Amino acid sequence: MYQDHFSLSASSPASAAPPNMPAPLRVGLLGLGTVGGGTLAVLLRNADLIAARAGRRIEVRMVAVRNLERARSVLGAHAASLHLTDDAQVLVHSPEVDVVVDVMGGTTLARTLVLQAIAAGKHVVTANKALLAEHGSEIFAAAQARGVVVAYEGAVAVSIPIIKTLREGLTANRIEWVAGIINGTSNFILSAMRERGLGFAAALTEAQALGYAEADPAFDVQGTDAAHKLSLLAANAFGTLPQYAEVQAEGIEDLQAADVDFAARLGYCVKLLGIAKRRGQGLELRVHPTLLPAGHLLAQVHGSMNAVMVQSDAAGTTLFYGAGAGAEQTGSAVIADLVDLARSASLLPHQRVPALGFARGVQAGLPVVGADEVESAFYVRLDLSRPELAAPRVLQQLAADGVRVERMAQYPHPADPELQCLVLLTAPVRLRTLRPALQTVEGWPEVMGFASLLRLGF
Amino acid sequence: MYQDHFSLSASSPASAAPPNMPAPLRVGLLGLGTVGGGTLAVLLRNADLIAARAGRRIEVRMVAVRNLERARSVLGAHAASLHLTDDAQVLVHSPEVDVVVDVMGGTTLARTLVLQAIAAGKHVVTANKALLAEHGSEIFAAAQARGVVVAYEGAVAVSIPIIKTLREGLTANRIEWVAGIINGTSNFILSAMRERGLGFAAALTEAQALGYAEADPAFDVQGTDAAHKLSLLAANAFGTLPQYAEVQAEGIEDLQAADVDFAARLGYCVKLLGIAKRRGQGLELRVHPTLLPAGHLLAQVHGSMNAVMVQSDAAGTTLFYGAGAGAEQTGSAVIADLVDLARSASLLPHQRVPALGFARGVQAGLPVVGADEVESAFYVRLDLSRPELAAPRVLQQLAADGVRVERMAQYPHPADPELQCLVLLTAPVRLRTLRPALQTVEGWPEVMGFASLLRLGF
Repeated sequence: MYQDHFSLSASSPASAAPPNMPAPLRVGLLGLGTVGGGTLAVLLRNADLIAARAGRRIEVRMVAVRNLERARSVLGAHAASLHLTDDAQVLVHSPEVDVVVDVMGGTTLARTLVLQAIAAGKHVVTANKALLAEHGSEIFAAAQARGVVVAYEGAVAVSIPIIKTLREGLTANRIEWVAGIINGTSNFILSAMRERGLGFAAALTEAQALGYAEADPAFDVQGTDAAHKLSLLAANAFGTLPQYAEVQAEGIEDLQAADVDFAARLGYCVKLLGIAKRRGQGLELRVHPTLLPAGHLLAQVHGSMNAVMVQSDAAGTTLFYGAGAGAEQTGSAVIADLVDLARSASLLPHQRVPALGFARGVQAGLPVVGADEVESAFYVRLDLSRPELAAPRVLQQLAADGVRVERMAQYPHPADPELQCLVLLTAPVRLRTLRPALQTVEGWPEVMGFASLLRLGF
Repeated sequence: MYQDHFSLSASSPASAAPPNMPAPLRVGLLGLGTVGGGTLAVLLRNADLIAARAGRRIEVRMVAVRNLERARSVLGAHAASLHLTDDAQVLVHSPEVDVVVDVMGGTTLARTLVLQAIAAGKHVVTANKALLAEHGSEIFAAAQARGVVVAYEGAVAVSIPIIKTLREGLTANRIEWVAGIINGTSNFILSAMRERGLGFAAALTEAQALGYAEADPAFDVQGTDAAHKLSLLAANAFGTLPQYAEVQAEGIEDLQAADVDFAARLGYCVKLLGIAKRRGQGLELRVHPTLLPAGHLLAQVHGSMNAVMVQSDAAGTTLFYGAGAGAEQTGSAVIADLVDLARSASLLPHQRVPALGFARGVQAGLPVVGADEVESAFYVRLDLSRPELAAPRVLQQLAADGVRVERMAQYPHPADPELQCLVLLTAPVRLRTLRPALQTVEGWPEVMGFASLLRLGF
């Protein structure tokens, strides 16, 4: 069907004629935007290679879009070889479709259609992290009841098979924590701030101009997108349903260029991390800018790239790196799910990998430790008018309040020549202990407002 | 059975009672050395967690060892709860065993026993890279004929699920190349040489003292072990049987401390890489010390850690990092294979992930490009007695022979004050072109022997 677009060389394994190959896996695409287009392009370009791996062809039989004209122009000659519709209902109920691929975005219509597809007995592949983070419990339960698969490798760090790694690769392990750079937009902005001294606003504008940030960047720079993804990582690591509502998310929009600079001078790099960590009977589940030593592996992740580090009891420290977004990159993940389905579509549920990695005993949630109770080192910056007097007093006060300062530095204030910036790196401490101490010193006349507070390490 | 060794907290998912769980997957361990012991320890410690993921318990029912006394002391109280034998034949034919785990090492007896286990209808999990690199074609064919699985995640970069990643995670992709630090011993030695200026012999002695190198280090430092692993990575990436005999392997044993030092001064780090790369209708398949820019992600891999970088058409650049050896680390990989088998043991072959990643069209091999034809930049070091005369002549001669030098530096010889080391970094060139040029200058009286030739980049 798509042979004319296939360009594997003649000697490649894929060129072997496929006699007696089972019937194709028939796919319906909900949406033909960036990700839908990228998925289709890779499916067409590598069709024979993918069939050689999967043992069956994977064919897009139907595409549902809002705008038929636009879709026809995207599809070109392929429009004739598949069923193009603007009625998603037709697709999710079509007997011509085995798997519904949701690449439409949003959480309202997508939720309805995904649930309808499940009810119609279709398997679902989705790259929609918001949908699963917010409605995953409902969707996974519906899929389980109906005996179909909901696969979502494309929902997190797309080029990295991190869902598969957590669900299947590290199954022997008690996972201690997962910490990841899982929002490429934020990492691009942070890289620009660090490498070229840009302020947040300028770096954001550049990211938008280059297509790394949306016109409305709120989801990315406020930490929402990372929180969506973290909830899916944590579910697979710890055997819970997605606990998105419990994630304590702080983005990078308030980060100041001066703090990125001071951190660099002290040997640190600021990264937006999503962190899920065992803590007694509960979990820490948080997204925030974090200082990492410049030599840390996660500090080597530049631009819009993603990486997820996993600490587990048998495998130890592992890290998985790749692109976090992109049309074909997401397509790579969506197609990996389709290849899995090409083998497993007809299996019984207990023969399949469970949706959230646990066949039994998945819990609704684990208690999430409040931000005040999470212990970490901190980077504290105070802007002082009379540093020679104020700095010793600040240190005394912090010591009196049980906060140990491990390192101190002073830098000229970037804008106000009358001020000195006092930067303190604390020993691990709870915010519950640190905050009252900072509130005390904030009230002093020589402390010109409390400037910045960032977590250091995780 | 092993509840007394299980320490998951009460609220963990694994503590949920498993009603109506299917029958356990019954494992026979061939060998109880480092890896066998580590595998057993993790299986016991995380038994409930693993069962919660797998949907069935995974139980070691039989262990075959040479030395029963030693095994009894390793097993302690567990010796009573399993069948310990010194007759491996009993194990591979036992009706009490579903899966034979080969963790015995070697390629002669291991080959015989693995083939016997397959003939007896047992699935096989092995961490034995030498066995599969050298006899994989025979073993995979036997398994396919008998309809059983041979799984081997533990054979390569154990903490990293890299076989799963290539076979299942990147199935959408035409893979361009795979480049990995896949021998932890060599990487430990190279790290010590670079970070502390040790010579090869001193670094090897230290690695041996710390348990990172064997008493007989030949397999590791001559590149054999990396070649074994590379042949398995390449097979999964490119759809061939393992082509171990075709790998051009050069180890680190001839690497000089001076070259590690000069490379560092020029901004490079020397790593032993295994590289498999598409080249026209064939493959480059090579293991050798390689200069990488100090900022390269693979240059951040220190000590005995491993990492594999993969370049593919849709996912782009990805990297996977973790421990390359260790008892429990290897156990983690072996158990991941067992969990896969817990779900798939009863499936039909076309419902399982194919052994080498391709369901169809696996080729015996692809033509491997000879070392002379592999193009790369090079690091060349010549020791000169009269550098002011010789250096310009060397550059002239290389230019005349079609070798472009992109960078040049001179350093005092580390041992002989009469000599200067001339270091040249070339543009990409074939060894076929470079070698004759070097042979010419080697003959000159002011060139005191040809010192070092290393590849730069890949």
